[in-house]
Formats: sequence, C-alpha cells, structure tokens
Amino acid sequence: MVANLRIDSNSVTPLYRQVYEMLRASILRGELVSGQRLQPTRELAEQLGLNRATVAAAYELLEQEGLIRGHVGRGSFVAHRSTPSADAPAVIHFGTSRPDEELFPLEEFRETVAEVLAERDLISLLQLGSPQGYLPLRRYLQAGSPAHDVLVTSGAQQALDLIQRVYAPAGTTVYVENPAYPGLKNVFERAGVRLTPLEDITAPSAGGALLVVTPNFQNPTGRTLPLEARERLLRRAADLGLLVVEIDIYSALRYCGEPLPSLLELDRRGRILQIGSFSKIAFPGLRTGWIRGPQEAIAQLTEAKQWSDLHSDQLSQAILLRFAESGRLARHQERVIAQGVRQREAVLRALEEAMPPGSRFTRPDGGMNLWVELPGDLDAESLLDDAQRAGVSYLPARYFQTGRVDRNAFRLSFGGLTPARITRGVRLLGEVFRRHQSGVPPAPATAIV
Amino acid sequence: MVANLRIDSNSVTPLYRQVYEMLRASILRGELVSGQRLQPTRELAEQLGLNRATVAAAYELLEQEGLIRGHVGRGSFVAHRSTPSADAPAVIHFGTSRPDEELFPLEEFRETVAEVLAERDLISLLQLGSPQGYLPLRRYLQAGSPAHDVLVTSGAQQALDLIQRVYAPAGTTVYVENPAYPGLKNVFERAGVRLTPLEDITAPSAGGALLVVTPNFQNPTGRTLPLEARERLLRRAADLGLLVVEIDIYSALRYCGEPLPSLLELDRRGRILQIGSFSKIAFPGLRTGWIRGPQEAIAQLTEAKQWSDLHSDQLSQAILLRFAESGRLARHQERVIAQGVRQREAVLRALEEAMPPGSRFTRPDGGMNLWVELPGDLDAESLLDDAQRAGVSYLPARYFQTGRVDRNAFRLSFGGLTPARITRGVRLLGEVFRRHQSGVPPAPATAIV
Repeated sequence: MVANLRIDSNSVTPLYRQVYEMLRASILRGELVSGQRLQPTRELAEQLGLNRATVAAAYELLEQEGLIRGHVGRGSFVAHRSTPSADAPAVIHFGTSRPDEELFPLEEFRETVAEVLAERDLISLLQLGSPQGYLPLRRYLQAGSPAHDVLVTSGAQQALDLIQRVYAPAGTTVYVENPAYPGLKNVFERAGVRLTPLEDITAPSAGGALLVVTPNFQNPTGRTLPLEARERLLRRAADLGLLVVEIDIYSALRYCGEPLPSLLELDRRGRILQIGSFSKIAFPGLRTGWIRGPQEAIAQLTEAKQWSDLHSDQLSQAILLRFAESGRLARHQERVIAQGVRQREAVLRALEEAMPPGSRFTRPDGGMNLWVELPGDLDAESLLDDAQRAGVSYLPARYFQTGRVDRNAFRLSFGGLTPARITRGVRLLGEVFRRHQSGVPPAPATAIV
Repeated sequence: MVANLRIDSNSVTPLYRQVYEMLRASILRGELVSGQRLQPTRELAEQLGLNRATVAAAYELLEQEGLIRGHVGRGSFVAHRSTPSADAPAVIHFGTSRPDEELFPLEEFRETVAEVLAERDLISLLQLGSPQGYLPLRRYLQAGSPAHDVLVTSGAQQALDLIQRVYAPAGTTVYVENPAYPGLKNVFERAGVRLTPLEDITAPSAGGALLVVTPNFQNPTGRTLPLEARERLLRRAADLGLLVVEIDIYSALRYCGEPLPSLLELDRRGRILQIGSFSKIAFPGLRTGWIRGPQEAIAQLTEAKQWSDLHSDQLSQAILLRFAESGRLARHQERVIAQGVRQREAVLRALEEAMPPGSRFTRPDGGMNLWVELPGDLDAESLLDDAQRAGVSYLPARYFQTGRVDRNAFRLSFGGLTPARITRGVRLLGEVFRRHQSGVPPAPATAIV
C-alpha cells in the first residue's frame, strides 16, 4: 500500500521510529488520506521483514498523535485530514495558552546548543548541580532585579507548587482572581487550601496566607491591572499581612499600550514573590522558570525545591541563558510580538464580526488569552461538542472557576495560531453559536468532572 | 597582576563570564596561587575598561565555586590549591553519591545532541509536552517491562516526592531501611509522615501506607537483599496490605556477584512502584527518572506530576533516549562498571589497611556507597572537622538515620573518585581516626541540625 517504505537496519534511529516517521510523512503529504485503512500490522511487518511488535509500536505512536485511529476488529484508519497547507492539523485549537511553534527559530536554537556544547564547563552541566539553579543563569536573572534573590524552577507551575508547599499549607486561605488559570486552582485545591476570589477580601482573615495575582494579561481573561489597582492591592495585602505572589510570565508579550511597573517594582515591604518563565517567550518544552524574592524566602523555597527534584535540568538552563545572553531571545521576542499584534487584531476583529449579538469579550493588550461571554441562553459548555465537530475547540469556564461556573463563558487562547487560522476558527465558532441561538435547542450538557 | 586578560566585546560570551573564565583558568593552571590576593574589583575593572559590577560578578562566581574567598575589608584571595594533576580539587570528597565525571563521554554526548537537533520532531520537543513524558522515551522504558505503565519524572527524587503526595499523606506510616538516603527521609518527614524502620514491621499497622526499599546496592550501606529476603518482604507487604516502592537506580552498576530478580519481576500482586533513573548510569545534570507500575497508579501519579511541574524537560528526555537507543549508553555503562570494579577494590583494600582496628564496613557488590562503623569511642560526627582539615570529607550517620544516631558511623561514597584518589583519601581518613584513637581527646561535637 505504501510503496516507498525503506528500512535502514544500520541506522541509529530505531526501526519502529523509522516506520512511524515514514507513515507520518505519507499521511501529512496526503499520500494516505483520511478514512483510508492501513495495512494490518502483521502484513506490513512481513512486507518489511520486521517484527510485528515493531510495526505495532509505530502505529501506537501515530494513534497517540491523532494521525490514525484504531477500531477493534476492523484495523487502523487514517484520521488526519491533510489540508492544502500541508502540515496544518484539521482542528483549530483555541484550548492551550502556548506560543506559536511555527515561530520557533530552529536554526538559532541549534546554534545556541552548539555554543553550549563547546563551553568549557559542559562537564559540570552534566554533573549534579545546585538546588537553587545554574549559577550563571541565576546571576543573569538577578541582574533584572538586583535587590532580590532568585530560585530557578522547572517552569512557573513548579514555582506555584513550591510556594504552596512552603507558604500555604492545608486549611489556609489563598486569594485568587476569578476566573484563574487551572494549574493555579489545582495546586491549591489539591493541597486542601481554601481559594477565595480576590474581590471578596473584606476583613482580615485568620487563615489568610497568600494573595496570587497576574497583573499583566492574566490567564484566562487577558486583563491588565491599572497602576492604581496595583497600588491598592499592595496596600490591602499589607493591611492583611498577606504575602503577594505576582505571576509575571506574560509581561514581555505586550502588543499595545504602555508598560506598567510590576508589583515587585512597586513594593516597599519585601513581601512579594515574583514568578517568571521562559515558557511563554521562548520554548515551553524546556522547563525553566524562576522565583524572585527576599533572600530568606528564596532560601526556604530552595530547601523545598531540593526535596522535590534536587534541581532543575542544567542543560536547558544553560541553553536558555545562552539564548538570552547572545541576543537571540530579544530578536525572537520581537518576532513574537509582531505576530502577537496581528493575532490580537485578527481575534478581536473576528469576534466582533462573528459572535452572536449580545456577546461580550475582553480586549487584552498582550499575552495569549481572552475571555468570551455568550448571551444568556447559550451554553459554551454543552456547545463544545458541536464546535469540535465543526473543527474548533476552546476551554469552557469550569476549568477556571471555583464554586459558581458561568456556563456561557469560555477562554480563547490565540497565542499558538496564525492570524488566518484565528479568523477561520472564530468564524466557525460564530456559525455554531448563531445556529443554536436561532432556536435549535442545545444538546444535553456533558458531565462536569 | 594577571597580564593575559583579553576581553572581546564582540563575543556572545558576556563580559563577566569572560573575566570569570580567564581568572578561573589562571587559578587552575597555578598562575594565581592559594592565598594570593586578587586585584580589587575597581582596579581590575579600570585596567580592563569594564564596569566594576562586571568584575564583581566574575569574582562572585569564582567564590561560589570555592576558587577564591572574600574577606570583608581585605579583598579576595585565591582559595584553590592547584595540585600537580592540574584541575584536581584539593579536598577528596566522599560525600556525594554521584558518578565520576571524568568518565562522561563528552564527544558521544555532543554527537547525541547533534542527532536530536537534526530530528524532524525538534519543534515538538520545544513545544509544551505530555505530563506522562516524551512518548518515544516512555515506549523505550516500557519495553523493559511491558506489563507496566511508565511515568517520566525529573529524576528519582521527584518520583519519591510524587509517590509521597499520592500515597502517603500526613499521619500515615512509611517503612524504610535504616539508615536511608537523606532525600528519602526528607520527603516523608517534611510531609508529616511517620518513618518506621523496616525491621520493626511486626503487626499490621492502621496508618501503614508504603514500604520503601532499595534491594540492590542500597544508599548508604551498599547492601543487596538476597533472593529469599526479597520474597519474604513481598509476602510481608501482601499480609499488611502495603504498596511497595522499589528504588532501582543502582542495579545496572554491579561489579561482582550474580544479578537477582527485581521486586517488580518477582511480584504477582501488581502492588509495586519501581523507581529508575539515568542519573547514576549517565548524567545527573539532566534530570530524567521514571516510575514503572500498574496503569491506575501511573494515572494518579501523572495527575500529581502535571500540577507539580506540567512535565519533565523534553530536550533531555530526547537526548537520553537517543543516547540509550544508539548503543552509547551501553558502551558508557561498560566503562563505568570497569571503573567501578577498580573503585570497589581500591576502597575495600584501603579500608582494610587504613581503618583503626575494630572498624567494620559493608562490602557492596555494586553502586557507589558503603557504610563504615568505627570502634566504640570514635565519633565520626565530631572527627569530620579534622578530616576536612586533612583534605577528606564524608557524610556522618545523622544524615541517614531517624531517631537514634550511630555517631561512630558514616557513609563513604566512592562513585565519583578515581581509584588513586580513593586510596589516598581513605589513608588520610585512617590517619585522622588512628590519631584520635591513640589517646588524643576528640574535639567538641558540632551541633546536630
């Protein structure tokens, strides 16, 4: 069926991956088309002179990627619809707050790694390292805020997790924005911490431990906190004796408006922990974030870090440092921001044109996310199935809210998509929503888990 | 003072790192000798036409590495004693259970990385990945035990941490070997879990959650559990309804004797979580370990992993997979084992010759550690200061024991040292211990923290 499969048994690439890569290429090039049945593993194995398990492993990889689908007793079928634009997947995912991988500067990344591999201290990168992080990277990060100490973490998610473990044990109260990023909600809820919406801070609370806020381009709403609100928040936290956690992972991605001082910059009390990360501005697959804060807090968090995973991956720390110090990060960021300006324009214009009358949505000045509220009777939760059938997906409000869920609301993450796909995706969504608004009754709601 | 400092302002290497690297080289080559005063930062900055902060950053790096030492008001002094063997540090550290970095195959590592960078799916390595781990690596690890599922973790330390979080909440009891690895003790103690020595398992305990054991070359004792003891342990765990955690990170490093089946292989109940890692057999700076276990347990642990740090670093996962699949890991392991045979011979022979009469020590068949007990009146805890002054260090028993501490005992980690340095280090230790045994009273004990 696939005539051009050539297996090289001398290659360092294992056999199952060779099979996988060739089938994958055939599917993406459209030589194998959606719905077409693949040869049974036994038959293809015989044809190629391979073990059946080898071919089965390749099929499993393809299935995990969503390129084929297995049906018990009937075999495996191509599930990927190849489009005129070659590698573009069929469904337009507005579901993940992540960068557009098409912008990843692969050649500059390869150069960066080559430079790190040529460095004198490669050997010490491969050896056991320091719980607080690779020293040259800490030094680099500290230059951005000399009065504070730095702990390198495995991304912003681990920064939140460590802060929960040190500062917000079970039974305490943490004040958060509502809606909030699922990884934030989950860290605290799993630990038995009580989450209270920020707007409900009224009186000093006995078990109040932390206040967590994302002042720039919050996930999921994309909102920015004005200067006066930042100052008010800091005064309020001071009155209540709360430690403030500032999530600062989107700030560099500003597409319009003027930058505002961070909470860390505004603070006079030494009671801020600021979380940063390379994941939104560079490569999320390399897990490198950090916490800036007072020396004593960083020492406590470093102790927690040590018993969580000893230390973060050193090769990635060195690569990201070199990527930043060589100026490549700044150049990459320029391209990402230029694209962000176009993404923002595309998503706002398409929403204005395509959403049903009565819809509301935030208008972020940067970042990767915005929040849509449909008019009263439209249920974003139950309409997700229809949207997916139409080739678009998003995350409904229940992922972001604690307690009452606004079933008419959802997050639209536009950071990973080209402007053209954003426009197309929002229009498809508009068609689905308008169809239901015009009288067709909505499907029964899916279970809330 | 240092005539050959040349700064290249066009280099991608930042200025402070250029200064750091040149001073470091001068110290290691012995051009700057121990006790020599460095130029004040202001003076060197002027000489090189640099900002003073740049030079200060370089000095701080050198100080963090222990190459120079700062004295308030007097300046910075070279602290590193360069030895005839060039880069060898002055103190012989028996304190860390880690591989000998001199054996790291840097060229093969560079080739491996180059191959990964040339792969078609580099872009997906840099993008957000799966909480359970990079699929081709999971597939590779699963081939070692097809009946079990696999979760990739950030080293064995994170595996322990996740297992604590899912299976041993505060107030439960965990049975461990005594003495035990500090990272194991700390994970459970910090979480409010009660640690009970394995030998005290007598009756079914209400709050009993886990039994944690390292059957091969345990850290710190180096002991191996005989086959009958493994079977007895599994029966005992079954009787008490305990989940068993098998730490299996040293098994590949066997220097003599016959391999024994792992607990995972012996188990018939599906109640084992086996922890593995690349850190002891390859590069600990790349944080990649794993847990093998029943599908349901791996699903729960994956959920905990997701909210801990989303997923492990993907570049390192891909590099270690390629290092393994290309056969380079197996070749490296052969060299490490050949060296381990010599390390083991050297340490055992030197201990026999040099330790004071009445000393006892374990004789491991593999791994990186052994356990020494000095005769009655010798206090390994308080003698550590003397040992360090003589140029040797080790970790005393209190790091490994809960409750009663055997102050005459300590761990000797020989994995990171050449046979010649092992011999020299053990002889120096013998001199220190014998001096104190012959009547000179020991110094007052340092505080136990």
